[in-house]
Amino acid sequence: MTNITICGANGKMGHTIYQCVQERADCRIISGIDLNTTAYADFPIVSKPEELPEKPDVIVDYSHPSTLEGLLAYCLSTGTAAVFATTGYTDEQIASIKEAAKQIPVFFSWNMSLGINLLVSLAKKATALLGDQFDVEIIEKHHNQKIDAPSGTALMIANAINETMAVPHQYVYDRHSRRCKRDKNEIGIHAIRGGTIVGEHEVLFAGHDETITISHSAASKGVFAVGSINAAVFLQGKKAGLYDMNDLINERG
Amino acid sequence: MTNITICGANGKMGHTIYQCVQERADCRIISGIDLNTTAYADFPIVSKPEELPEKPDVIVDYSHPSTLEGLLAYCLSTGTAAVFATTGYTDEQIASIKEAAKQIPVFFSWNMSLGINLLVSLAKKATALLGDQFDVEIIEKHHNQKIDAPSGTALMIANAINETMAVPHQYVYDRHSRRCKRDKNEIGIHAIRGGTIVGEHEVLFAGHDETITISHSAASKGVFAVGSINAAVFLQGKKAGLYDMNDLINERG
Amino acid sequence: MTNITICGANGKMGHTIYQCVQERADCRIISGIDLNTTAYADFPIVSKPEELPEKPDVIVDYSHPSTLEGLLAYCLSTGTAAVFATTGYTDEQIASIKEAAKQIPVFFSWNMSLGINLLVSLAKKATALLGDQFDVEIIEKHHNQKIDAPSGTALMIANAINETMAVPHQYVYDRHSRRCKRDKNEIGIHAIRGGTIVGEHEVLFAGHDETITISHSAASKGVFAVGSINAAVFLQGKKAGLYDMNDLINERG
Amino acid sequence: MTNITICGANGKMGHTIYQCVQERADCRIISGIDLNTTAYADFPIVSKPEELPEKPDVIVDYSHPSTLEGLLAYCLSTGTAAVFATTGYTDEQIASIKEAAKQIPVFFSWNMSLGINLLVSLAKKATALLGDQFDVEIIEKHHNQKIDAPSGTALMIANAINETMAVPHQYVYDRHSRRCKRDKNEIGIHAIRGGTIVGEHEVLFAGHDETITISHSAASKGVFAVGSINAAVFLQGKKAGLYDMNDLINERG
Repeated sequence: MTNITICGANGKMGHTIYQCVQERADCRIISGIDLNTTAYADFPIVSKPEELPEKPDVIVDYSHPSTLEGLLAYCLSTGTAAVFATTGYTDEQIASIKEAAKQIPVFFSWNMSLGINLLVSLAKKATALLGDQFDVEIIEKHHNQKIDAPSGTALMIANAINETMAVPHQYVYDRHSRRCKRDKNEIGIHAIRGGTIVGEHEVLFAGHDETITISHSAASKGVFAVGSINAAVFLQGKKAGLYDMNDLINERG
Repeated sequence: MTNITICGANGKMGHTIYQCVQERADCRIISGIDLNTTAYADFPIVSKPEELPEKPDVIVDYSHPSTLEGLLAYCLSTGTAAVFATTGYTDEQIASIKEAAKQIPVFFSWNMSLGINLLVSLAKKATALLGDQFDVEIIEKHHNQKIDAPSGTALMIANAINETMAVPHQYVYDRHSRRCKRDKNEIGIHAIRGGTIVGEHEVLFAGHDETITISHSAASKGVFAVGSINAAVFLQGKKAGLYDMNDLINERG
Repeated sequence: MTNITICGANGKMGHTIYQCVQERADCRIISGIDLNTTAYADFPIVSKPEELPEKPDVIVDYSHPSTLEGLLAYCLSTGTAAVFATTGYTDEQIASIKEAAKQIPVFFSWNMSLGINLLVSLAKKATALLGDQFDVEIIEKHHNQKIDAPSGTALMIANAINETMAVPHQYVYDRHSRRCKRDKNEIGIHAIRGGTIVGEHEVLFAGHDETITISHSAASKGVFAVGSINAAVFLQGKKAGLYDMNDLINERG
Repeated sequence: MTNITICGANGKMGHTIYQCVQERADCRIISGIDLNTTAYADFPIVSKPEELPEKPDVIVDYSHPSTLEGLLAYCLSTGTAAVFATTGYTDEQIASIKEAAKQIPVFFSWNMSLGINLLVSLAKKATALLGDQFDVEIIEKHHNQKIDAPSGTALMIANAINETMAVPHQYVYDRHSRRCKRDKNEIGIHAIRGGTIVGEHEVLFAGHDETITISHSAASKGVFAVGSINAAVFLQGKKAGLYDMNDLINERG
C-alpha cells in the first residue's frame, strides 16, 4: 500500500488523481497540499508540506513550479519520494530536482502518459525486429485548435524509432510535392486535424502482405493522472535516483 | 437471370469475373471472347463476337481498346448491352461509346469498384449534413511502389466532397510547413505509403466530441470484377443510355 | 438566425448547448429556463416559460419530464417550436407531445446524436446496395460499467439494416458455441467492453476482396447537445408537425 | 549472405519465398528441391536433397511430411540448418526433428508469421505493464468460410496474455446472454466473420480515458514465406538447437 500526498490537490488533475486512486487497491491518498484547503474527500488538505499531519510514502506534484523549493526541502529532510509532473520548470529548477535525486527517489518524465510511453516502447521493439524490412509511418490526430504539426509526441515516437534503426531515416511530411516511390529510409509522419479530438497516435509497420499497427487514443488529460499514480507506486521502496517512464516500463515488462 | 459474355475471358480479370459469378444466383457466364480460346469452365470461348453461339444479355469487356470496334458493331446490330471496363480508350473511342449509347444500354465508369463509388456516395451524404460543422480529412494508404500522391481515388473523393460543400474548400497536404490552427475551409489529404498495401481510403468527419469515419479497403483488383458484374446485372432490361456507378447506386439506395 | 431558449439552462447539457452555440453563426441563445436562475452568460435565466422576456423561435428542452406541461402550454399559446430532448416521459406525456405537434413544429427523436443517426442512414444506404452480396457485422465498444450488451444503439442500427434487407437476417452474438460457416442471412453483433470508452459503433460490410466500414465514436454526451442545436435550427420556419432526425438528415442529404 | 535451398520450390509457397528473397540483400536462393524440377529462375531444382549441386546454409522446407526423412538425413550428414514450415507432421516425425536439433540448428514454430509472433510478444509486454489496470479484449476478423471461432491464433494470443497476468482470467465470448458489468478478470474474445478477409487480429487494452491497440492484418499466406526467410537468416551460424519465433524476436528486440 503506497500512501500518497497530492500537491495541487484542488486542481483539476488533483481531483482526477483522487478519482483514479479510488479504483485501486495498492495505494491511497492520505493528504493533499493546496493553497485552497477545501476538503472534498476523507483526507485533509493543507497549504504547505510542513503542515502535513503524516509523512506520505510519495508526494505526487501537479501544482506549479513555485511550489518546487518547499517540496524539495520537505522531501529531502523527511526522505520522501516525489513524482514531479508539473510543467514549466526553469533549467535551474530541473537541476535542483536532479540534485535531490542523489538523496531521494525522484520520478520525472517528459510525458507522464503510461500509454504513450508504452507505445514508444512497443514501437522500438517492433522496429528492432522489422525496421529493415517493413516501412514505418506515423499518423497522429488532434483537435482543430492545435497549432503545432506534427505533435511533439509524434516526434518523440519518431525519434525513438529512428534511434532503433540500423540506418538513420528521414522524416517525410508531404508526399504530394514529389512524384517518386517511397524511399526505404524514410518515416512518413502525418498530422490529421479535426473537431475536438484529444489525441491519437498510430505507428504503422507495413511489410509484404502484412501490417502491424500500434495505436494509442487519449480521451482526456486524465491519462497523465493514471501515469503519475503508477509512478508513485513504482517509486515506493526504490533507492535514491532519478527515474522515468522507461524505468517503470522496463521493470514490469 | 442475366446471361453474360466476358470479352477478355482468358485475362486475369476475366478469370476473376468467372469466379465471382459462381457465387451469384442472378447471373451466369454463357460464353467468352478472347484471342486465346482455351476453355477453363463450362462455357465456350470464341475469338470474335460474331462467332458467339448465342446472344448474351450483356457483354462485359475487360480486354483491350483494339476490340472496341468489333464489340460495338456486334452490340449495335444485335441490341446487346455492354459494360466497358477496359482502360486506355482514345477520345475518339470514348465518343463512339457515347454514340452507341443512344441505341443500346452502355455502362462506363471512371472507377469500377462498387465499394469506392459507394464510399463517395456516402461521403457526399455525410458532407451535405455535416459539412459546415465537421472537419473533413481524407487518409489513403497504398504500397511503397506507388508514384503518385495522393491517389487519384483520394482526389476523386475530395472533389466529390468539395462539390457538396456550400463553400469551396482548399486541399491541404502538409501541415508541417506552417504553424497555425486548421482553417474551417480546408480538407486535409494524407498519403500513407508502405509495404504491399493494395488500397485503403478513409474519410474522417470530426466534430464536437464525435467523429464519423467511412472507409474502404481493397485486398485485390478483384473489386473491379465485382463492380462490373453488378453493372451487367444492372444493365439488363434498361433502355438505351449511358450509365455509370452513380446510376447503379442511386437505383438501389 | 435562430433564437433559442434552453430549458434546463443550468444543467450540464444546458451549459454544453451554450458552448456549442458559441461556435455557430446561424443561431444564438437568447434566454434560459431553470429552477436555478443563476446567469453564466449574456442571457437571462427565468424559472418559468411565462417569465421569458422575449419569445424565442425554438425552445430546446433538456430538463425533466415535470416541465413538459408548462412548456407545451407556452409553446401552443405563442406558436413556439420545441425540441424535446428530455428522457423519461410517460406514454401520456408522449401522447400530449404528438397532440401538440398538430399545431406547432415539434422535434422528438429516440437518439439525439447527429452522428449516430447519420451512421444509421449511411448504413441503410450501403445495405440497399450491398446487402445481398456483402456480409454485415456490427461492433460496438463501451466502458466496463455498462450492463446491457449489445448497446441499444447497436440494436437500433441492426434493426434499421435488417429492415432494408430483402430477406430478414438473424442476429448472431456468439460464434464460439458452434462450428460452422457464417450463414448468408445473419448479422453478427459484438459487444466489446473496457475502461471508460464512452461509445463506439462500427458497421462492417465485407465482400469479395473489399470491405466498407462506417463508424462513429463519441467522446462525451455532448454529442446530444450538438444534435439538439441542429434540430432547433432545422425546426425554424417549419410548419406544424412531428419531426425527428431522419427528417433532418433527409432534408439536407 | 545466407544461401538458401527451398524444399517445395515449385509449390505456391516456394514461389512466394523466391519472390520475397528477391527484395533482400542478406540472402539468396541457390537451389530448390521438388518432384517437379521445372526451373523458373536462375537456380536449379532437383528432386532429392542428395542431388543438390552445392550445400546451402539453410534448407527452408514448405513441402510435405513425406520429405522429412530424406531432408533430415541430408542435413545431419552435411551439417545443414533447416527451417521446417511444413504442417501435418506425426508425433514421431516431430520427435525426430527434435532429435536432429541436438546436432544441427533447427527452426520449428507453431505459426511462421513474423507479424503475429511480434503481436504476441508486444501484447505480453503491454499486459505485464497494464494487465492489472486495463481491460483486455481480442477481436479477430476472418472470411465467411472459416469454421472455427475464435481463430486458433486468437486463442494463442489470449493464452500468451493470460500467462502474463498475475491472476488467471476467464475468456468471455458472448456478453449478450447475461446482464452484468464486465468482470475485471475476464478477457473478451470476439470473432467477426465476413467476405474474404484473410486474417486480422487486434488486442485492445482499455483503461481510464486511454486505449492501446495492437493489431495485425494479413493480406495473404505470403506472410508465412516472409517469416520462414527470416527464420533461415536467423539460423545461419547458430549452434545446434531447436529454435522458434520467440528466439528470433528476442534476439533482435
